Amino acid sequence: MVGREILRASAGLCASLRRRDLRAGHSTIRSHADTPVTTNFMGTFPGLNYWKMAQHLDVVSWDSYPRWHRPEADGRADDVTLAADVAFVHDINRCLKGGKPFMLMESVPSATNWVEAAKVKRPGMHALSSLQAVAHGSDTVQYFQWRKSRGSSEKFHGAVVDHVGHENTRVFRDVADLGQKLEKLDAIVGTTVRPDVAIIYDWENAWAMNDAQGPRRGDKGYLDACKRHYRAFWDRGIPVDVIDMDQDFSPYKLLIAPMLYMLRPEVDERIAAFVKGGGTLVLTYWSGIVDENDLVILGGWPGGMLREVTGVWAEEIDALYPQDANHIIPAPSNPLGLKGEYLARDYCDLVHAEGATVLATYKSDFYAGRPALTTNAYGAGTAYTITSNNDNRFLADFYGRLAEDLALLRSLNAELPHGVSAQLRSDGEHRYVFLMNFYAGPTRVDLGEAAYTDLLTGETLTGVIALAPYDVKVLAG
Amino acid sequence: MVGREILRASAGLCASLRRRDLRAGHSTIRSHADTPVTTNFMGTFPGLNYWKMAQHLDVVSWDSYPRWHRPEADGRADDVTLAADVAFVHDINRCLKGGKPFMLMESVPSATNWVEAAKVKRPGMHALSSLQAVAHGSDTVQYFQWRKSRGSSEKFHGAVVDHVGHENTRVFRDVADLGQKLEKLDAIVGTTVRPDVAIIYDWENAWAMNDAQGPRRGDKGYLDACKRHYRAFWDRGIPVDVIDMDQDFSPYKLLIAPMLYMLRPEVDERIAAFVKGGGTLVLTYWSGIVDENDLVILGGWPGGMLREVTGVWAEEIDALYPQDANHIIPAPSNPLGLKGEYLARDYCDLVHAEGATVLATYKSDFYAGRPALTTNAYGAGTAYTITSNNDNRFLADFYGRLAEDLALLRSLNAELPHGVSAQLRSDGEHRYVFLMNFYAGPTRVDLGEAAYTDLLTGETLTGVIALAPYDVKVLAG
Amino acid sequence: MVGREILRASAGLCASLRRRDLRAGHSTIRSHADTPVTTNFMGTFPGLNYWKMAQHLDVVSWDSYPRWHRPEADGRADDVTLAADVAFVHDINRCLKGGKPFMLMESVPSATNWVEAAKVKRPGMHALSSLQAVAHGSDTVQYFQWRKSRGSSEKFHGAVVDHVGHENTRVFRDVADLGQKLEKLDAIVGTTVRPDVAIIYDWENAWAMNDAQGPRRGDKGYLDACKRHYRAFWDRGIPVDVIDMDQDFSPYKLLIAPMLYMLRPEVDERIAAFVKGGGTLVLTYWSGIVDENDLVILGGWPGGMLREVTGVWAEEIDALYPQDANHIIPAPSNPLGLKGEYLARDYCDLVHAEGATVLATYKSDFYAGRPALTTNAYGAGTAYTITSNNDNRFLADFYGRLAEDLALLRSLNAELPHGVSAQLRSDGEHRYVFLMNFYAGPTRVDLGEAAYTDLLTGETLTGVIALAPYDVKVLAG
Repeated sequence: MVGREILRASAGLCASLRRRDLRAGHSTIRSHADTPVTTNFMGTFPGLNYWKMAQHLDVVSWDSYPRWHRPEADGRADDVTLAADVAFVHDINRCLKGGKPFMLMESVPSATNWVEAAKVKRPGMHALSSLQAVAHGSDTVQYFQWRKSRGSSEKFHGAVVDHVGHENTRVFRDVADLGQKLEKLDAIVGTTVRPDVAIIYDWENAWAMNDAQGPRRGDKGYLDACKRHYRAFWDRGIPVDVIDMDQDFSPYKLLIAPMLYMLRPEVDERIAAFVKGGGTLVLTYWSGIVDENDLVILGGWPGGMLREVTGVWAEEIDALYPQDANHIIPAPSNPLGLKGEYLARDYCDLVHAEGATVLATYKSDFYAGRPALTTNAYGAGTAYTITSNNDNRFLADFYGRLAEDLALLRSLNAELPHGVSAQLRSDGEHRYVFLMNFYAGPTRVDLGEAAYTDLLTGETLTGVIALAPYDVKVLAG
Repeated sequence: MVGREILRASAGLCASLRRRDLRAGHSTIRSHADTPVTTNFMGTFPGLNYWKMAQHLDVVSWDSYPRWHRPEADGRADDVTLAADVAFVHDINRCLKGGKPFMLMESVPSATNWVEAAKVKRPGMHALSSLQAVAHGSDTVQYFQWRKSRGSSEKFHGAVVDHVGHENTRVFRDVADLGQKLEKLDAIVGTTVRPDVAIIYDWENAWAMNDAQGPRRGDKGYLDACKRHYRAFWDRGIPVDVIDMDQDFSPYKLLIAPMLYMLRPEVDERIAAFVKGGGTLVLTYWSGIVDENDLVILGGWPGGMLREVTGVWAEEIDALYPQDANHIIPAPSNPLGLKGEYLARDYCDLVHAEGATVLATYKSDFYAGRPALTTNAYGAGTAYTITSNNDNRFLADFYGRLAEDLALLRSLNAELPHGVSAQLRSDGEHRYVFLMNFYAGPTRVDLGEAAYTDLLTGETLTGVIALAPYDVKVLAG
Repeated sequence: MVGREILRASAGLCASLRRRDLRAGHSTIRSHADTPVTTNFMGTFPGLNYWKMAQHLDVVSWDSYPRWHRPEADGRADDVTLAADVAFVHDINRCLKGGKPFMLMESVPSATNWVEAAKVKRPGMHALSSLQAVAHGSDTVQYFQWRKSRGSSEKFHGAVVDHVGHENTRVFRDVADLGQKLEKLDAIVGTTVRPDVAIIYDWENAWAMNDAQGPRRGDKGYLDACKRHYRAFWDRGIPVDVIDMDQDFSPYKLLIAPMLYMLRPEVDERIAAFVKGGGTLVLTYWSGIVDENDLVILGGWPGGMLREVTGVWAEEIDALYPQDANHIIPAPSNPLGLKGEYLARDYCDLVHAEGATVLATYKSDFYAGRPALTTNAYGAGTAYTITSNNDNRFLADFYGRLAEDLALLRSLNAELPHGVSAQLRSDGEHRYVFLMNFYAGPTRVDLGEAAYTDLLTGETLTGVIALAPYDVKVLAG
């Protein structure tokens, strides 16, 4: 079902099983029909552990409603940040069936009606947002909805056909144009990507942590932390898998587990084996705290084998108020080449290096001088511990260096300017690179001496190329 | 009952039927007594459509509790704005029975107790606030309450007689002084005003729009928009009727219908007939969208005959975030003499001129250059469409020019400085003009060569006169 | 039970009766055992009138969880202000049984888990916060909890023994160190303090006032006002009793009753007798308003005998919005030596001096020039009335002068720098002064020519001594 037929039909509506059918279950459905089974996922919706649910589906599908064009209000809500956050969720959906292409089950042709302000999509965003899903592994682009209803709560939700009832609208033309673009991407159907990097975002870890009384009240910042680690790779065009802690770690060179508060059975052993076998691990503050029943692991954090793997003992955690800040200072001549100082917020683990090498220390407060970043050789691998919630600049510098040292797979051999994302799909033989500009202005990318064909236009691209606002190119060859 | 007797008794309490009697109904009451029937309305209280309720009353009455002297918090909450907003509601109450004088059923002699901060009325505000009601058509000034109770939740609500139990208080003296003023206004009892302008504020339109999911969440800004259109006339001393969409439009030269989202049956035909007959119509964004059942009107907005009347088709509406803004730029040599540029917020309708003349265009975003203000000749009349929620300066300039062109009825032939309101009452022969200073400082008005008698003092007024803070004069002659 | 044994065991857990036993009652318990009866009080918890409850206990105990190290967010939340606020509650607990030492039933060895951000205690704060309780009359320092649980909602609440399970932690060392300090304070067990000053903070007054509709909505600022009056004495090292209005006033030279909204039976007579007998009284705005049933006292405020005692009649109260402000201007050559002007917020009583002498007047608004501070001779005593909610600087200047004039008991004959508190305990013969630095930096105190022994170190202290951040010294001799 996931294949050419779907991709071709992508500008239409797809018959699929919806939430109302969840209780029936896969086997009951299968006893009546051969129709593939799916249901609409909703990003990181906390109400269901999608890793459990995905096992019972034939194909993963999800509803994506990003709020594009929202002005900056909190300092991080711009379209580029939003694009990276949406990419993070697309990658979860691709990983849920082990890299198998998913379906963009619902997206809106123009404005989402139930948001604070239903802003219409600016020219170009329709195609960009749709093709971003394909870039990350979707084999379809589908809409809710074909035609706006006359009544009820979704009557002002965007649709292919508006209340005016004809096709002479900007939105309809956008949909038709996208359909023509998709026609040219048949070769991509069924392809996927096999990243060198995995980030663990785990539903049950989120449930347990956010339900805990301490060290902060309410939301602990887990999802935000995972997205910010992810962003460091998105900015560089490095593909990432986003998995839960029960998945196989062996395909990866680099395993990142921000705020790994919960350790389900054998997770610590599996992580230890990964590092021992030559893998690189990054852990953070507030990790290895509880078991699968949210009961605290005794004997010192991070618990289980992680204390040995990381070579640190986290004696205390200091939670900072939103107005508080500390900084971390890299050690002189540290092997990662970190310099200057970085801002630390929210959490500061106070750790003892028990064999680990200290790469950075806290700048202020009573724990000035204590370890803030450590590295520990374990077997053939290495474990890093980031003990505080540092700014994006730290994550960019830190992961930038690891990416070089580990020669991580890149989608495109090029430096990407601000807002430009490169995502790879491949059948193992052919490479297809989606080059997407989420920045609202024109920009340029230097492709070097390589020459590509843009599947959307047939143009040959080489050297420095221009990208218009919200531009998308699909490079082949 | 509404007449001299009531006005004379105005500083006391009036026997009236209250909310507890609503269920009994007019006919049941009438079967037992000849007492006129009323009940306390509460401004634009959304819970009841007062236009339906008013039909069952003999006289309209309402409870007015403005929060005077509140410091500016949101940039628009000053006493002058509040005065215009209260005037808007007084005018609704006068219109509810076709211009028949109403009753100020409840007002507070000093501080309202249940507000954020129970600020006492500054000297002069008592008389000013009370006489404003009379200026807009009330034939009474009544209080809640005569004497403060010893207990319960309203024990600190202002009263004529305070807990101290005697008459030697500032508040009692204010009440007595007002009583003396009212004695001098007997001639005004029973008079009214017949404005050239009507603004439609419609309860069911508000219900439907605010309940809708989109294009913004929650309150859609309808009441605020109506008050801001109203303000342009209040500032000029031009009387306004505030009506719902089912009232007769024929008495007016200018009909303004901000955000006329709902069109109940025949409203579009009645509007078309009004314009065809020579009337001037002003419509805005987000108009003619649904019918009386909140079902969308198909075939292009504004729906029904309004698309023909206005000569525009509104293809899309862009909802802006509170941080967003656009501007509109008047066309060179536009017949309204608009210049410079005006701020647009919240909503931008993206319309096509289908016969209408474009008077202004958007300045920025992807719809820069598209129509923002149009005019359309229809029959003997004219229909204007304002496609975005523009600043007060636009409304002042736009309606200022229409007021001149249409020679709209003015209460007073004088320029009014900031904060000064002029309101007219007349029996058809004599004119009584309430000149009221809501600005907290002294100001002046040039009456020109005309000479008036101030009914409150007996003074003759002509030329430039001074108004003290919160001053009121009632000009006759 | 309250004595040497408890103090020595202070670093452990104390067997006590808890909330679950409240219903059983003292007599039922006593019929089965001689165990002293107590229950955990919770500061100014509004749900119970602790003055009623304390009568049924053998010893008062309370749970103190200050949020130390919270950054300034609202302009007043720093550790010094917090220290004074905690001192206020310690003093309530000492007064609840007439000056009998109380128990610090619960305190946390490190971070409280359920707060916005569980910040760990900075070095020194553990001992400082614990000994502050002793300084104000506690004979114990106890913790919740000995050992952290593995599960449930308090698993991350600080404990003597952490999940790591051994004693080699910063927190355990802090606890052990405190235990050694407490060993040296045996002489202090059973001692108390007998202040010259009492501030009335009354539960039922708070209930009635905060439940009232007016003159502000919701919380009326009563507790805050009491703490700010208290702070003026805390800053000077002047001991204060905090009592309710039913306690004996005769032991005091100075009785302060901020916002004495309610007057229970005979309270006005008892206050009058206190002043007539030579006492000094300070009343404020919004006083003498209702009786014990929250029914308004008729005939003029402040009600009962207070109008005669103060020599003022409060005709009206003006409630100010948070953005509003007035100022008060001291009368030239006023006997208190007040100068300049002081900020007034929230409430301005508009009073008439009926025999009282006016010491300050309002600066602005329509009541400029009217009394803002008055004094009235009554019998052998004096009654002051502060008619507005003035800034801390006013309270410091006003009470500073009263403290001198009345020669109020001081804990230490020394000027205290910002953040340093001095608290006295005595058995009538020996004096023990706790000198505590709540300021996060080093500071100095000039002890003059007197020489003391620091019970914690055995050192002799005289002249100018240095206090490290969070330092505590216990001066004897």
